[in-house]
Amino acid sequence: MKLYESATAPNCRRVRIFLAEKGVDVPIEAIDLAGQENRRPPFSDKNPMATVPVLELDDGTWLAESMAICRYIEELHPDPPLMGRDPREKALVTMWERRMEHEVALPIMQVFRNSHKFFEGRIEQVPEYGEASRRHALKRLEWLDQELADRPFIAGDEYTVADITALIGIDFGKVSGIRLGDEHANIKRWHETVSARPSASA
Amino acid sequence: MKLYESATAPNCRRVRIFLAEKGVDVPIEAIDLAGQENRRPPFSDKNPMATVPVLELDDGTWLAESMAICRYIEELHPDPPLMGRDPREKALVTMWERRMEHEVALPIMQVFRNSHKFFEGRIEQVPEYGEASRRHALKRLEWLDQELADRPFIAGDEYTVADITALIGIDFGKVSGIRLGDEHANIKRWHETVSARPSASA
Repeated sequence: MKLYESATAPNCRRVRIFLAEKGVDVPIEAIDLAGQENRRPPFSDKNPMATVPVLELDDGTWLAESMAICRYIEELHPDPPLMGRDPREKALVTMWERRMEHEVALPIMQVFRNSHKFFEGRIEQVPEYGEASRRHALKRLEWLDQELADRPFIAGDEYTVADITALIGIDFGKVSGIRLGDEHANIKRWHETVSARPSASA
Repeated sequence: MKLYESATAPNCRRVRIFLAEKGVDVPIEAIDLAGQENRRPPFSDKNPMATVPVLELDDGTWLAESMAICRYIEELHPDPPLMGRDPREKALVTMWERRMEHEVALPIMQVFRNSHKFFEGRIEQVPEYGEASRRHALKRLEWLDQELADRPFIAGDEYTVADITALIGIDFGKVSGIRLGDEHANIKRWHETVSARPSASA
C-alpha cells in the first residue's frame, strides 16, 4: 500500500490520524497541491476528481475519498474499533461522523474554499456563500457545545472516527478565521483531550 | 422500528429504496416539512438538526442521517449486500457512494436549496452559489457519463448504495432544472436500468 497525500489538506490529516489510532504504518508519497500535481497526469488520469488522499492498494487499485480509506483500514484492522462494534453503535457513529462532516467540517472548509486566494481559478468561488457558511458553522459550534456538555466524545463514551472528523474540521478553522472562544467551554475541553492523543500530530 | 420521513425529500427516498432492495418493511410516520413539523418539538427536541429521515429503534434511539440508517439495515440484513462484501469492495462502494453524494447529489440539491422559495427563510440562500452548483453538477454529469461507458452500475458490476445515491440525486434534478440530455447516453442507459427496479418507486 502507498498513501498519496498532502501535509496541509484536512482530509489527508483525517486519514493520518485514523492510521495512527490503528497503529498502521503506510508509506507516504507527497502530492504538491500548490503546484497542481493533483490536476495533471498521471495523478488526474487515475483520480479524475483530483482529490487527495488516495490509497494505492497492492493490486494497483486507487482508493480515493478519505472515508473510503478509513473504511478499508477498519475492515482490515478492526481493533481498536473506530466505527462502532454492533449494528446500533456502527449506525450511531455513522450519524455523528456525518453530522461532524456536514454541519461542522464542510462549512468551515467552505469559508476557506470560497474566500481564499489558494482556490482562485481552481474552483468557482462565491465569497457570499463563504460568509453564509461561516455563520452556519458558528451556529453549529454553539449546538455542538451543548451536545458535549454530558459526554466525553462526539459519539458517546468512546473515541471514534466522528472525533477525527470534528478535530480536522475545527482545527482547519485556523485558516478560515473560526476559532473556539469562551462560549465553547465543552468543545474546548473535548479539543484538549483529543489533541493530547499522539495521533493528533500525525 | 418506525421511520419518520417525508414523501418528497430525496434523502428519505434514498432510505425507502434501500429498504425495498433489502425487502425490509418499516412502518412510516409522515413528517410535514412544508408545515415545519421538523423544526418544532417534539421532533426538533429529538433531532435538533431537524432533518428527515429518522429511524426510531425499538429501544427508543433516534437514528438520524440517511446513510446511518442504511448502515444499520445493512448490518442487520447483510443480504443482498448493498455496501460491498470484502474490505476492498466495501471501500470502493464507499468511494463511489461519496462521489455520487458530493459530486452529483449535493450540487443538484444546492441548486434547489439556494434558489427555490421553499427554502426562503429556512436557510440563508445564496442564489449565486446555486448557479455555481448547477455548473458544477453539469460538469460532473459529463464525467459520470464517461465512467459509465464500460460498466453497468456506478461502483462496478453490481447494484449498490452508490446507485441509490446517484438516482435520488439525478431525479431531484427535475426540481433543480437539471435534466439528462443526449450527451448523457451512458447515464440514460444506467438510469433506465435502475429506474426499472421495483425499488425505484418506493
